[in-house]
Amino acid sequence: MPDGLKTGGQEKLRRSTSEDDITAAVLARFSATPDPRLKQIILGLIKHLHAFVKEVELTEAEWFQAIEILTEAGKMCSDKRQEFILFSDTLGASMVVDLIGHRKPEGATESTVFGPFHRLGSPDMPPGGNIAHRDTVGVPTLVAGRVLDLDGKPIAGALLDVWQTQSNGLYDSQDAGVAGLHMRGKFTTDTEGRYLIRTVRPVNYPIPSDGPVGAMLKATGRHPWRPAHIHFVVMADGYEAVTTHIFDRTDEYLESDAVFAVKDSLICDFVRHATPTPEAATLGISGPMLTAEFDFVLKPAGAAAQVDVLDAQRRLAALGARAN
Amino acid sequence: MPDGLKTGGQEKLRRSTSEDDITAAVLARFSATPDPRLKQIILGLIKHLHAFVKEVELTEAEWFQAIEILTEAGKMCSDKRQEFILFSDTLGASMVVDLIGHRKPEGATESTVFGPFHRLGSPDMPPGGNIAHRDTVGVPTLVAGRVLDLDGKPIAGALLDVWQTQSNGLYDSQDAGVAGLHMRGKFTTDTEGRYLIRTVRPVNYPIPSDGPVGAMLKATGRHPWRPAHIHFVVMADGYEAVTTHIFDRTDEYLESDAVFAVKDSLICDFVRHATPTPEAATLGISGPMLTAEFDFVLKPAGAAAQVDVLDAQRRLAALGARAN
Repeated sequence: MPDGLKTGGQEKLRRSTSEDDITAAVLARFSATPDPRLKQIILGLIKHLHAFVKEVELTEAEWFQAIEILTEAGKMCSDKRQEFILFSDTLGASMVVDLIGHRKPEGATESTVFGPFHRLGSPDMPPGGNIAHRDTVGVPTLVAGRVLDLDGKPIAGALLDVWQTQSNGLYDSQDAGVAGLHMRGKFTTDTEGRYLIRTVRPVNYPIPSDGPVGAMLKATGRHPWRPAHIHFVVMADGYEAVTTHIFDRTDEYLESDAVFAVKDSLICDFVRHATPTPEAATLGISGPMLTAEFDFVLKPAGAAAQVDVLDAQRRLAALGARAN
Repeated sequence: MPDGLKTGGQEKLRRSTSEDDITAAVLARFSATPDPRLKQIILGLIKHLHAFVKEVELTEAEWFQAIEILTEAGKMCSDKRQEFILFSDTLGASMVVDLIGHRKPEGATESTVFGPFHRLGSPDMPPGGNIAHRDTVGVPTLVAGRVLDLDGKPIAGALLDVWQTQSNGLYDSQDAGVAGLHMRGKFTTDTEGRYLIRTVRPVNYPIPSDGPVGAMLKATGRHPWRPAHIHFVVMADGYEAVTTHIFDRTDEYLESDAVFAVKDSLICDFVRHATPTPEAATLGISGPMLTAEFDFVLKPAGAAAQVDVLDAQRRLAALGARAN
């Protein structure tokens, strides 16, 4: 009977026995990827993933923990919760993608993260329509402005898809006490490119921190707070749609947004008025109120870019369905 | 009323406006992580994640696709399926972790991937115990050998935790027709360090390819097959446990294992016999059969390393529970 040790290592080349050998072998295996873009992405992913594991010398126990975290994140995903987007946001990856995708010409409104709380089907609203109709706590606020092109000319018929938390810091989808849509609306600009949105003052709020993202923030000494903001997707035929926020200039978390989404050009003054402005009075607002003014500037776009954003929204809806 | 364009950019430093700025801001935010090891890992992760996104200039649509893939992978995870481990395995990351964790002295048995199909609670078996007792299709096979220390001295009372697919290429947990455990057993070495396992010839099989990992393999022109193998975790008091496979030297997929787990030192001859060997005859085997010989060599270990592997198994069980 032969010696039990079948170490073929002496007889022929050894397979995959060093960390660099295995990376080379994996890259070689994927180099047959037919689609050139997919090939570029997958080879880049493997290169950086392996480099990360080698650089930190990830242990098996840590690897298991990573698998556990991914599994738990997957388990939390539903049509109302997207833990992987939260990871991407809190690790700053979403903002890198945003910055790469939207290298804007000077003057065009900057984009920022889409976040996981957009919903399809928000109602069409007339100018001055109140997205906060069920919110009796917040200070009434009118957000007004224009949608313009790069030359400062108004864009009529532009669509603004708006969403915001309630005054309790929760999006409708996070609030078990709220059925259906709330704090959401679609507004269309008039012939002068003007829009007018009635809402309540946006508040700062913590991102959902009862899952693995929350555990990561806690373990790394970070808070989960986002500065007060209102979400917008602004789109018009012939222009590149912009996904962005406007932020309240007085917010204490502007410098430490949990998802790194603040850009100076998106910071806006929410001006307090002790009595309603004439425009507010015609809308039936009484008592103290706020006004904010923000003009969105769109750059002209090829068809492809516009389709990209619309497609992204369809995808997010699909994602919710998929997670259920 | 002020001009609507509140571009604070002219007034003060802009926040997060280039891809490199955002990476620096994210690294700075995480630099307060109190635990030094976690800090090292998270900073490494961010550095490599951002570098990957920048290198390939990931688009928003591609980012959404990544979120979709992660969500779908999470949805597939259960106590019987671990799609994230499959991703780690098929991207070669598991083997990098394995190689870093087990830089073995010359002569010690090399480790390889753990895979997602280990189960706790497999039965204790006597020498010659048959793990394939319900498999009537495969060729009866005796796997025998010793567990040795680096000096070649036998280790008595070493434990071998063994698992393998059935002849249909499915692990018990993947086969709806099989209740409970099958093709699994725990064997203990005798005073001469010997073990003897009765099974059937291992077969090559495709990893589960009905999920996102399967889609990735297909899109990248890769097959999902693994060469025929038997899984082992071999452990003994005072030694570092080894998680490994033995592979059939004649298998057509040795050079292209879907999970990159083959090492030459783990390749083994499965020798055909037209009639049972005397040992096989005493076990009641009749007709053609195979024998394979493999000695496992363990290196002495500190307590920590041994706990690591046992802990990993407890973790995997916890993972299954978590995914349900």
